[in-house]
Amino acid sequence: MKLDIRELIKSARGDEPVDLLLVGGKLVNVISGEIYSEDIAISNGYVVGFGKYPARKKIDLHGCYICPGFIDGHVHIESSMVTIPEFARAVVPCGVTSVVTDAHEIANVLGIDGIRYMLESSKFQPINVFFMLPSCVPATKLETSGAKLTGFDLYPFLSEKWVVGLGEVMDYPGLVHAEEYLIDKIKITVGKRIDGHAPGLLGKDLSAYIASGISSDHESTSISEAREKLRKGMYVMIREGTSTRNLADLIPLVNKENYRYFIFVTDDRHPQDLIKEGSINYLIKKSISLGLDPVCAIRIGTINTAEYFKLSRIGAVSPGYQADIVIVDDLKKFNIKMVFRKGELVAENGKFVGKKIKSQVEVRGSINVKWLYQNDFQIPAKSKKAQVIEIVPEQIITKKKAVDVKIKNGFVQSDIKNDILKLFVVERHRASGNIGKGLVSGFGLKKGAIASSVAHDSHNIICVGVDDKSIFNACVEIVKMGGGLCVVNGNSVLGRLPLPIGGLMSEKPLRQVNSSLKKLIALSKKLGCKLSDPFMQLSFLALPVIPELKLTDKGLVDVKKFKIVSLFV
Amino acid sequence: MKLDIRELIKSARGDEPVDLLLVGGKLVNVISGEIYSEDIAISNGYVVGFGKYPARKKIDLHGCYICPGFIDGHVHIESSMVTIPEFARAVVPCGVTSVVTDAHEIANVLGIDGIRYMLESSKFQPINVFFMLPSCVPATKLETSGAKLTGFDLYPFLSEKWVVGLGEVMDYPGLVHAEEYLIDKIKITVGKRIDGHAPGLLGKDLSAYIASGISSDHESTSISEAREKLRKGMYVMIREGTSTRNLADLIPLVNKENYRYFIFVTDDRHPQDLIKEGSINYLIKKSISLGLDPVCAIRIGTINTAEYFKLSRIGAVSPGYQADIVIVDDLKKFNIKMVFRKGELVAENGKFVGKKIKSQVEVRGSINVKWLYQNDFQIPAKSKKAQVIEIVPEQIITKKKAVDVKIKNGFVQSDIKNDILKLFVVERHRASGNIGKGLVSGFGLKKGAIASSVAHDSHNIICVGVDDKSIFNACVEIVKMGGGLCVVNGNSVLGRLPLPIGGLMSEKPLRQVNSSLKKLIALSKKLGCKLSDPFMQLSFLALPVIPELKLTDKGLVDVKKFKIVSLFV
Repeated sequence: MKLDIRELIKSARGDEPVDLLLVGGKLVNVISGEIYSEDIAISNGYVVGFGKYPARKKIDLHGCYICPGFIDGHVHIESSMVTIPEFARAVVPCGVTSVVTDAHEIANVLGIDGIRYMLESSKFQPINVFFMLPSCVPATKLETSGAKLTGFDLYPFLSEKWVVGLGEVMDYPGLVHAEEYLIDKIKITVGKRIDGHAPGLLGKDLSAYIASGISSDHESTSISEAREKLRKGMYVMIREGTSTRNLADLIPLVNKENYRYFIFVTDDRHPQDLIKEGSINYLIKKSISLGLDPVCAIRIGTINTAEYFKLSRIGAVSPGYQADIVIVDDLKKFNIKMVFRKGELVAENGKFVGKKIKSQVEVRGSINVKWLYQNDFQIPAKSKKAQVIEIVPEQIITKKKAVDVKIKNGFVQSDIKNDILKLFVVERHRASGNIGKGLVSGFGLKKGAIASSVAHDSHNIICVGVDDKSIFNACVEIVKMGGGLCVVNGNSVLGRLPLPIGGLMSEKPLRQVNSSLKKLIALSKKLGCKLSDPFMQLSFLALPVIPELKLTDKGLVDVKKFKIVSLFV
Repeated sequence: MKLDIRELIKSARGDEPVDLLLVGGKLVNVISGEIYSEDIAISNGYVVGFGKYPARKKIDLHGCYICPGFIDGHVHIESSMVTIPEFARAVVPCGVTSVVTDAHEIANVLGIDGIRYMLESSKFQPINVFFMLPSCVPATKLETSGAKLTGFDLYPFLSEKWVVGLGEVMDYPGLVHAEEYLIDKIKITVGKRIDGHAPGLLGKDLSAYIASGISSDHESTSISEAREKLRKGMYVMIREGTSTRNLADLIPLVNKENYRYFIFVTDDRHPQDLIKEGSINYLIKKSISLGLDPVCAIRIGTINTAEYFKLSRIGAVSPGYQADIVIVDDLKKFNIKMVFRKGELVAENGKFVGKKIKSQVEVRGSINVKWLYQNDFQIPAKSKKAQVIEIVPEQIITKKKAVDVKIKNGFVQSDIKNDILKLFVVERHRASGNIGKGLVSGFGLKKGAIASSVAHDSHNIICVGVDDKSIFNACVEIVKMGGGLCVVNGNSVLGRLPLPIGGLMSEKPLRQVNSSLKKLIALSKKLGCKLSDPFMQLSFLALPVIPELKLTDKGLVDVKKFKIVSLFV
């Protein structure tokens, strides 16, 4: 439904019956900061007025609360492992009618094509998807990504209506040193927002980062860090993702004097948490349970985000605003009874009831691997001692330790007894033949191998396993699927979850993807794996910006030294 | 000083001494809502950091308060009767470093040329002047203005960096009836703000007005009116002008829940009030004295306005923000000790100390009158009874009354005894020869005439007087000056204030204009005038949107009927 100003004016005047009148509800007015009984008149997809109106249809809300549709201020949709249409059908019943996404993951795989794919597949879906342009593709020079995006590449996207700025500038050391490639991108982002990503950055370096024009950050983990960022003018995005949860730590900082500069974001939420907890609705509910004033909490999940991103006609229930409305039973229980998007009922009692519009957008395959042989996965022993990546369960950091390795015929072998397994990262964008080789401790596999094409941020193929045959077959299975996850034992593929879109996303619904994922985890456990989510853990082993020891297709990375180091001591 | 991101980053890091360090002050942090001791580092015209920095220059603030430069959210600079450079030198010492102006007055005279003149003459001045495009030129069809501005005329200005939206839509009945010429202008204003002007508009009509896309209003005079506008999503601009003063009435509505949607504006402030009271500093001080929390009051005069108009790097004292800073001695006394603009000291203890940069912008003459003869000012008596405009002192409304007129040789004469004087509006844009003829009661002149080329909104020449010779000579004097104000008796021009720019503004400094104006008022009093400010009163007699009886160049206007009526009953 296109905005027709003449029609809005006519409907607002009450010249003809409005499409829908919501009666008997209590309006959470995020502009005036009040809650009071009010009827809401809706026509042509927009709120047109309050109070008595002749209406073609009435819905009695029986005292429920009327909130604006929730807005997720920063989310990587790829982390849900489903397409935008399926993501929408999953989060709309949670009351999320708008998201601001940064297609950082798919852009690392498919570059401009990836961004274009995401933009196009969000059209006509029951959710407003705004985009921040990925600012740091590739994330580092220590890995091979599928694309390199310069200011020149991003520039044309900035005139796209749904693009609202430049995404999280995660290379904060680069920016603090005024690196050309970042300054370029900041300069072209005129009149739109630039998001930050600066964990632990404080003092003069933080001032430099902010002075460049970055006005938000979602990486604060403590009150003192968030307070300094706020005082220096940043919007503080409070994140409650799957592996990164900061809400309980940060909510005590929010008060009536400063609440307007806070925004709720999920960043990365995996399928299981979207299903179990929900999305922004969960953050609002949890912050209320932690003692935050409900109107404050709802503002942080709606109007604040809209104002920060300069979104028009979104974020409030008010004349002229898009009729994106969430009906909540109670401000403590916070059950989402109904969700309207542009005036249409799209969810009821947790079920999506809107029109299911299949996205017709196509995207090219993303797996481009040099032909593999089993002996590619041999590791010639250069010494008896090697540096091993030590998993920290449930966390994305790792530790390093030097251990004596098991050697046979001059090649390093997985050492089941001591839980030292072979780990590989196979470059999959340019068929360069790069294979990073390492050793990892913590998975506990006794046989077989598991592999994935989701491996932050370059998303090469990552595989951990016991024997070369399993490892080889697992990597080949990923190639055959065109990306995905698998569990293999010898020549048997025990389980697989194809992720054909960029090797990151399935075309299946979220619940189906989640149950496939659960099965794969169960299969891994049968092979001896001790981790609660081995695929999540695996996906961060290739991320060379998080300490301490990581593996990319270019080799072992000592993160503190920020360079490739030898596997052997 | 142009924004140089690389330099800002370098300065913020403290790699080299900053230009200026403000030490020993207390920061009013409008982002975090706190007041605390903080040192402010400034380089290249921008705030770069807080705390200890090596600095080329230090200023000790001895415990004074550090506020962001004040922003006037809606002001017609023409009402100050001086050019933008002189206006800047007058308000900068008041702490006003940014204004949002609507060149509605000069646009009614000179059209696009007028807007262009204002835009150009604001360049390089010690103040940021943002523009809203006049939406209603001419204001009505009942008068002859110098220009008619369509959406087509305004469109190119919308891509100008300093243009931040569409100015007050004062034809609210037109908009509520979806008039094409207004819808056009609203449609082209994409991503920028549209200001409202809707005195007393409530209920469904208000909803229609807002739904069209208008998001502020500065015409509320009561709490209940302002509350309805706020609840429906409008920013409430609290106005304290010269003849329209709403601050005391509206401040009680402001609280911690809703303060973020209030903005301070002066709308129209005459020279005397700018000198005596000041500008936005006066509104902040007065609202604090009325009990408003000082941080709230300062936010309403700074960051709120910046956010509403989506202004970047303005409205706070924070890294990356323009170093527009006001130093205040005390939050009650609120004396402005120093004002910095882009890091330069531009005012100290009420005196402008910045560089005086003369504007070199030229503008064509605006007086284009058909050659006048004394007998143009005869009023043939068509009956014995006429409708007389009755002045309400200090107000812009008038009343009407029917009286028996004094007739001589078939012509109506001024009746000194009953204070019924002849009033004329001479069209001065197109030399059409239009002369509106009427009668007015309330001036009390016993001899002579006074005339002005300031006459809202079309700014034709308006003249009140006793005898035809004085009236004729007064009108001719306005023409000779190329616009202005004068007091005439017979053939003697007793006093004159040329306003060569659009017939609205002088090139002289504000204090000089004010003392000329005072002299003219004193001269009027010598002629018998009873009004405290006859020129102000005169200037509103031609404004046909304010009840009850007005006079334009087209004739007498009955405002309630909204049409031209006969002078005679």
